[in-house]
Amino acid sequence: MKIPEDVRKDIPLTQEVIYFDNTATSLTPKPVIEAMNEYYLKYRANVHRGVHKLSQLATHKYEESRRIVADFINAKFEEIIFTKNTSESLNLVALGLEHIFKKGDKIVTTPYEHHSNLLPWQRLAKKLGLKLEFIGGDDEGNLDLSDAEKKIKGAKLVAVQHVSNALGVIHEVEELGKMAKDEGAIFVVDAAQSVGHMEVDVKKLKADFLAFSGHKGPMGPTGIGVLYINEDFFDVFEPPLIGGGTIEDVSLDEYKLTRPPERFEAGTPNIGGAIGLAAGIRYIEKIGLDKIEKQERKLVKRTTEGLDELEVPWYGPRNLKKHAGVVSFNVPPLHPHDVASVLDEHKIMVRSGHHCALPVMKRLKINGTVRASFHVYNSLEEVETFLGVIEDLVRKLRAQ
Amino acid sequence: MKIPEDVRKDIPLTQEVIYFDNTATSLTPKPVIEAMNEYYLKYRANVHRGVHKLSQLATHKYEESRRIVADFINAKFEEIIFTKNTSESLNLVALGLEHIFKKGDKIVTTPYEHHSNLLPWQRLAKKLGLKLEFIGGDDEGNLDLSDAEKKIKGAKLVAVQHVSNALGVIHEVEELGKMAKDEGAIFVVDAAQSVGHMEVDVKKLKADFLAFSGHKGPMGPTGIGVLYINEDFFDVFEPPLIGGGTIEDVSLDEYKLTRPPERFEAGTPNIGGAIGLAAGIRYIEKIGLDKIEKQERKLVKRTTEGLDELEVPWYGPRNLKKHAGVVSFNVPPLHPHDVASVLDEHKIMVRSGHHCALPVMKRLKINGTVRASFHVYNSLEEVETFLGVIEDLVRKLRAQ
Repeated sequence: MKIPEDVRKDIPLTQEVIYFDNTATSLTPKPVIEAMNEYYLKYRANVHRGVHKLSQLATHKYEESRRIVADFINAKFEEIIFTKNTSESLNLVALGLEHIFKKGDKIVTTPYEHHSNLLPWQRLAKKLGLKLEFIGGDDEGNLDLSDAEKKIKGAKLVAVQHVSNALGVIHEVEELGKMAKDEGAIFVVDAAQSVGHMEVDVKKLKADFLAFSGHKGPMGPTGIGVLYINEDFFDVFEPPLIGGGTIEDVSLDEYKLTRPPERFEAGTPNIGGAIGLAAGIRYIEKIGLDKIEKQERKLVKRTTEGLDELEVPWYGPRNLKKHAGVVSFNVPPLHPHDVASVLDEHKIMVRSGHHCALPVMKRLKINGTVRASFHVYNSLEEVETFLGVIEDLVRKLRAQ
Repeated sequence: MKIPEDVRKDIPLTQEVIYFDNTATSLTPKPVIEAMNEYYLKYRANVHRGVHKLSQLATHKYEESRRIVADFINAKFEEIIFTKNTSESLNLVALGLEHIFKKGDKIVTTPYEHHSNLLPWQRLAKKLGLKLEFIGGDDEGNLDLSDAEKKIKGAKLVAVQHVSNALGVIHEVEELGKMAKDEGAIFVVDAAQSVGHMEVDVKKLKADFLAFSGHKGPMGPTGIGVLYINEDFFDVFEPPLIGGGTIEDVSLDEYKLTRPPERFEAGTPNIGGAIGLAAGIRYIEKIGLDKIEKQERKLVKRTTEGLDELEVPWYGPRNLKKHAGVVSFNVPPLHPHDVASVLDEHKIMVRSGHHCALPVMKRLKINGTVRASFHVYNSLEEVETFLGVIEDLVRKLRAQ
């Protein structure tokens, strides 16, 4: 495929706006919409336990989607659980592991986490009297790996993001996973901002739990998320949500849960959503993760260069090898929302605010940032248009 | 609208198969699919906190969907929480209320519940040493209301289904709600099988919590469910899932939750799903709940009459006023799955098995039932075709 032209052809909205809000959610290519429409129009049925043809076909497609997701992150079929989003996945991990913690146990995370990988651990720590410690790092988001080694010593669980949605920094999750496993700690990865943008391999990361959403990197629909559960934890993890098909037997007095993955999926799953996510992953595979990464790196390079030329402050690592396709910046003295409004007038869609990472904003002593975030369908021309608008804005401000 | 003809025109699958598996999931009318496609093609963005036009429009449509759902069940806007399905909604209630129970407290339910309204209470009772008691009733599913009064005395929480997915019985939820509130008990309603098929009014039911799915009665997509939380419980209910936008403020050490409904929705919601559900409800409203109920009653009447003529045993209440559009039956000595296979050969889609209600099957001393369940798009002609196949089957069996 020609990048980004051929992808843009599959996404009509790219012809109408400059969409730089991919960290929040991605645009949807036509093959994903078509796969969902096919389900709703041609074999609309519930999965499992149905002997009729529509149900058989729906079940086949749903479980095939699970296989596609599993292969994509190098997991086993039964290690993939469908949830509604990353936040649910991460909360389930905290709830389902609650019983293994004792007072004084240590959980380690980073100061750069999205609220969804922070609040569940804060609550657990408060409830059970655990220690919650943070790996040191600098204002660009770079972790201090020697501090990581110290902090992880004696930890019961380590939970880290792969990529920061606020700063764009790619953390050394492979090294952190090795440290965690050397200490016998459980390793939890928030991969919301990496899956679909770069290679994510649960084996290489030594992840015990890994969470991501379908609607971001993988270009799938909303309402479908994934929780990878390493099979070693099948009997440790207690599913917070039970009922429906999660059982082997039930009487009025007691129940016996069935085997994974069914054990961990209560109620009718998002069948259309899983099928859409699988179509998104197939589409990503057709493009190739290497090409996606290359295109995003090109866009980040030009964006940060352009902002530097305009002396507009941006955040995140100067080392662009560690910088994913997310550029946070500010145009002082304007509020981030005002900058976003100006860009919106030029049909450029960016996000502004705290990006659900308030501790990062507090550390940087700012109320928020403007965030331009990319996917493979974004072009260098779009970046130039964006930089042109920022240049005009900066000129006006400085002329005052 | 002409019933069922005009609805059938909007659902192409009705021209290809006889779909009698509506208790599992409903077919999807074109306006629902179109509403979702419009979102994915025209204003694909994340909700909240975005100042750009696409995000503003997505937010408007998402919150308008919440308003449509609220009006539909006579709730307030902020009392509607989007989840992924009924099972999640019910589990959230049990998890979020855990802290209010003391050892020896009593939870009351019925012996006819779907696993999803049984297992969460069984687990809670076991964990905290609560009493779990069951309202008496007969093999048709009719509750003994004088026993209900006795059992509910002194209860802390009463959790009941509105309609049984296995027997089709419509329970006296209004009376049960009154009993619960007279005792100061929390009243939880599993409305998975009633919403979209008959009037459901949270005020009339005196429900404190009510759960349903978008993909069943309301003809919406998969992956979107609803949890109604009576505003009196906003500060009692502790959201099991936190993070993302559920907050007002966050530091590395602590967090403060924001107001409902945001407090109870962690992470990116199923935006496309909520929009699809709202389109489904609009569609239901266009048809009229009274017409839906009337059509389903006609189909149940003819189905049960026909089965009686063939001396085929069916389950659920003989009093058809209490019988929703779900007819469970068996053709002995055949296994329910074998009957479903025969029907499938004639392009008639029914469900067979225990219907996630094993205690009901154990009580009736059967391994399962065949279940024909209806929605407004089903026709009397389809019922006649179905009865014809059953008649042939019965004749062959009896000739042996």
